[in-house]
Amino acid sequence: MKVLLFGCGRVGRAFCELLGRKRDVVESASISLVGVATRSRGCVFNSHGIDVDRLLQWEALTGRIDALESEGTLVISDANEMLEDLDYDILVECTPSDFEIGEPARSIIKKAIKRGKHVVTANTGAMSLHFDELTRESLEIGVKLLYEATVLSGTPLFSLVRQGLPGCCIRRFEGILNGTCNFVLTVMGMGSTFDEALLEAQRRGLSEQNPWVDIDGLEAAAKTVIVARSLMSANVDLKQASIKGIRNITAQNIEEAKRRGGKLKLLSRIEANSNEIHISVSPEILSLNHPLAHLEGFSIGALLLTDVIGEICISGSGSGPKETSYSLLKDVLSLREG
Amino acid sequence: MKVLLFGCGRVGRAFCELLGRKRDVVESASISLVGVATRSRGCVFNSHGIDVDRLLQWEALTGRIDALESEGTLVISDANEMLEDLDYDILVECTPSDFEIGEPARSIIKKAIKRGKHVVTANTGAMSLHFDELTRESLEIGVKLLYEATVLSGTPLFSLVRQGLPGCCIRRFEGILNGTCNFVLTVMGMGSTFDEALLEAQRRGLSEQNPWVDIDGLEAAAKTVIVARSLMSANVDLKQASIKGIRNITAQNIEEAKRRGGKLKLLSRIEANSNEIHISVSPEILSLNHPLAHLEGFSIGALLLTDVIGEICISGSGSGPKETSYSLLKDVLSLREG
Repeated sequence: MKVLLFGCGRVGRAFCELLGRKRDVVESASISLVGVATRSRGCVFNSHGIDVDRLLQWEALTGRIDALESEGTLVISDANEMLEDLDYDILVECTPSDFEIGEPARSIIKKAIKRGKHVVTANTGAMSLHFDELTRESLEIGVKLLYEATVLSGTPLFSLVRQGLPGCCIRRFEGILNGTCNFVLTVMGMGSTFDEALLEAQRRGLSEQNPWVDIDGLEAAAKTVIVARSLMSANVDLKQASIKGIRNITAQNIEEAKRRGGKLKLLSRIEANSNEIHISVSPEILSLNHPLAHLEGFSIGALLLTDVIGEICISGSGSGPKETSYSLLKDVLSLREG
Repeated sequence: MKVLLFGCGRVGRAFCELLGRKRDVVESASISLVGVATRSRGCVFNSHGIDVDRLLQWEALTGRIDALESEGTLVISDANEMLEDLDYDILVECTPSDFEIGEPARSIIKKAIKRGKHVVTANTGAMSLHFDELTRESLEIGVKLLYEATVLSGTPLFSLVRQGLPGCCIRRFEGILNGTCNFVLTVMGMGSTFDEALLEAQRRGLSEQNPWVDIDGLEAAAKTVIVARSLMSANVDLKQASIKGIRNITAQNIEEAKRRGGKLKLLSRIEANSNEIHISVSPEILSLNHPLAHLEGFSIGALLLTDVIGEICISGSGSGPKETSYSLLKDVLSLREG
């Protein structure tokens, strides 16, 4: 399976590193990276496979992807040419998320689907805004559109439900989906001010986007929409979500939560009441016996109420580019069997 | 796919109830229950499918499975005849677990495999004692041997790792695998004595086996062996496990854990040190920031340390026959695609 990587920011680079690190797994699955496209650092293509270690070395030295010009590796002037004309089987899309129109990811994904290529994406923006359009088109063409990386980073929520809970209905969903917010609230709980906590989160650099997209709850809400559409067949979109972030959380709020014997968390909720699905993201005080109350720092997790086996909780200790890129690899590996 | 059910105790009966409750899922997957075998309540077979609701009604009225004798449903005098001569695709094995020799489950499973039938089992005893033999034979014959129900009841640990974490290595495993022990420790934490707590656990009746198999850690150790063999390719068996149960836990031990700011839990561990795998089950004080410390009552869960994405934690709120029977159904559903 030939993989074309679109976008090589933190997640894309972590994906390349992972391909190098898990060379045995990747090779035994007959997966090879044949192209890498960036917006401003060039594009390369090699139908026999790109040496990811050399690619990363050259990029570190020169700041350019297209510095890797060697036997068989071609510098391509136009990313679109790779997408539309060159030979690959799977598009791995990790361009930056946009939460207003979902571009350029939407167009990139659509072009690959139209050519009959499978798509694996980490794009929370495009998937939350265009879930129906993109999944419908992939179904019509008969290709797979996989998006494990859009929610819970490396923690395999969608796999868990699809392969681990078939025949179960998800009645309610609660999640701590944004690692940056959870980190900020955790650091505030240790005595820092909001500004100090945010600065520390940025210093640890898990996100390259505008931090307010995280802080104001938009990114968590977009993820919640993807969960609602994917796992609860809910026809909802971002506009219908009630969203409140943590921008105005103070030390007093954190103290109040402690006084009430709980912890303040930015909680995503999907509630199915009669025929309505209600989606919200807001800071909530979780009691200490809530399974998500103990997720600290960049941990993320979800609690699913099922109709058959009660509650299932899944969580992961990390939510950075490394974890997100693992979900991309996992989705690529799942395409082995077609 | 025609299913033959061997064993109709609490788990088997819950499996029948679930087939009735999830009729739409079962029918759309073209699954039908064609036979039920019990040791002392008779055996029935119907190649066109048994009406599970009527089966359960008749059994409730008469105490016999073979009271359901109607159009096409045959009473079979010998369970072995069904296993070896009649037509089915999947054996669902839920006879009682035996932790000394793993019989009769081992022989039943081997007979089905030899006939080229897929096997889905809840038998912790047989799988922990004969894991290698049974998996090797199923591989040789080319049938599936699935055993999600043997560990964590309905919580899909093996699915999670196989489909959700491909290419990851599990470096360390910690689990709260026995719901009865966790319930006893939880109730003792609320002020009951060990005897009161055990009586209450038995009254809630999640297990039909000798409670000391749970209390002394044997059942948890057997589950740990299955995890080690299945997920960490460890060539270990029950004899090599260091096992300490909760029989001698006193109110003082529980208080001591509280004083030290933690909770006492019966913890299963699998540690990979250099080339050795060490397996243990013992009561441990978990600090309150341990992800498993907050599992109370009949909840069960596991913490996996992976090489790529750090820690992943999965837990479920229930560990009774209903949850266990769900894993049987899940495994049966996964055989749809062959």
